[in-house]
Amino acid sequence: MRDFSQDHRWLSLNTATVRKQWKLDRIIEECARRDIRAISPWRDQVAAVGLEKVARQLRDTGIVLSGYCRGGFFPAADAAGHQAALLDNRQAIDEAKTLGAPCVVLVVGSLPGALTGKPAYTDIARARTEVFDGIAAALEYARQVGMPLAIEPLHPMQAAERACVNTLEHALDICDALDPQQTGALGVALDIYHVWWDPKLQQQIARAGAARLLAYHVCDWLLPTRDLLNDRGMMGDGVVELKKIRGWVEDAGYQGYSEVEIFSELDWWQRPGEEVLDTCVSRHRSAV
Amino acid sequence: MRDFSQDHRWLSLNTATVRKQWKLDRIIEECARRDIRAISPWRDQVAAVGLEKVARQLRDTGIVLSGYCRGGFFPAADAAGHQAALLDNRQAIDEAKTLGAPCVVLVVGSLPGALTGKPAYTDIARARTEVFDGIAAALEYARQVGMPLAIEPLHPMQAAERACVNTLEHALDICDALDPQQTGALGVALDIYHVWWDPKLQQQIARAGAARLLAYHVCDWLLPTRDLLNDRGMMGDGVVELKKIRGWVEDAGYQGYSEVEIFSELDWWQRPGEEVLDTCVSRHRSAV
Repeated sequence: MRDFSQDHRWLSLNTATVRKQWKLDRIIEECARRDIRAISPWRDQVAAVGLEKVARQLRDTGIVLSGYCRGGFFPAADAAGHQAALLDNRQAIDEAKTLGAPCVVLVVGSLPGALTGKPAYTDIARARTEVFDGIAAALEYARQVGMPLAIEPLHPMQAAERACVNTLEHALDICDALDPQQTGALGVALDIYHVWWDPKLQQQIARAGAARLLAYHVCDWLLPTRDLLNDRGMMGDGVVELKKIRGWVEDAGYQGYSEVEIFSELDWWQRPGEEVLDTCVSRHRSAV
Repeated sequence: MRDFSQDHRWLSLNTATVRKQWKLDRIIEECARRDIRAISPWRDQVAAVGLEKVARQLRDTGIVLSGYCRGGFFPAADAAGHQAALLDNRQAIDEAKTLGAPCVVLVVGSLPGALTGKPAYTDIARARTEVFDGIAAALEYARQVGMPLAIEPLHPMQAAERACVNTLEHALDICDALDPQQTGALGVALDIYHVWWDPKLQQQIARAGAARLLAYHVCDWLLPTRDLLNDRGMMGDGVVELKKIRGWVEDAGYQGYSEVEIFSELDWWQRPGEEVLDTCVSRHRSAV
């Protein structure tokens, strides 16, 4: 297992972590200032600054991407919705190419309309079928342009609105069905926040192997957790066994970045961005 | 599949559903008034009225139990804690006998101290080992007195504080290890709130079969869910496919009660108890 205590060369910043404090160009500046070598930006943050401008800034600073957030949200109420989702995923893939991302992270979606409280249907098996078909269709284009797709299993508490793929096992079943040769075109983004509780986690990480582990995200699970979406903790402030899980991931062959992704309405989004980044750096050394 | 639309003979009330409105003796009266034939009371509610008095009231009204809540919370910081947990489980089993319960529901516990924000350790695998050993020890006594134990897998969002058994598959693995002959001494309490999201749910319900399905709990998953513990919905107000899941459960051979268990700080605990019970009755007919 790599020693993270001496430097933060394997730290990546998911830019949602300071999305309330800064626009993306400032975030990149602040990362460069701290020798943070990689980021994973969100599409709306990129759009707010401009795709070409962000690409240029990345080239100028030498900062690379550890992923691009996000594609997915495949289920839809009707055929027009499916078509729109596929076009949107193509565009995400194209943007990821422009930015030199190693993968597009897929938050696959679930009951269409559930995010606004009005699901078009409640048949989660149907949503799972639509997700499977949507990934298959997106993968066809992604293969053509050479952009890997990383399915992110989300915590079961987000199964209704955000993702109906909620375990690593389920994500890997989809990978095996759509990319049985393990070509590298399809894999998973493993976020410990979503999967830390899973009794099959170690086994499924071993099953995934380096070929499927395209991204690794860290934060922490707080006691108590006060919100189902935006109450993630800084690494070291919760109960997740970060080093143990990273050990499993590295035993499986993963040697990439540990990407810090913290949605925290009540705490970290309220603090100065400088403090957040400095804490990410120090906790990456001590707790990840 | 049984027709629930004509009457509510298979409705049971988990008495936590109106715990903020009434003491248990009043709850039993109100159930009797509505021909609710079964309840599942919590130990603290029983203690507040008195075990013998509750037993007598049940005999007088003819109301039976569909379960007794709860045993469990096996992990502990030290040997004294383990001993106390085992004694407490014995007592729960004895109380359940006195009340004629068909099973004691086990909320198995997880990181000791996590409920108060101060976990004695964060090794969830250790908690799972302690849970396994705790169930084995409690089962020995439960077998002697003839009281089945029902492991309740809790939603993964409660994995840190309340239960480190978070999938039906995991619960059934424990059952198979400790009661391979399916004697009826060990099974599961299946609460749809905790398991509805699971892509393996149908498969694992079939695996469970009538021998393991000792209790079936219903409520609903709300959009949005505003709290990780106490924001459950009334059946029909959320996205859970209640009839589909009950179909699976009955296909597996379950013919017992559908027990309504709603923890709802923001809604149902604020309403008059009469309204809550009347709504349980009508929704049991229309939505369960």
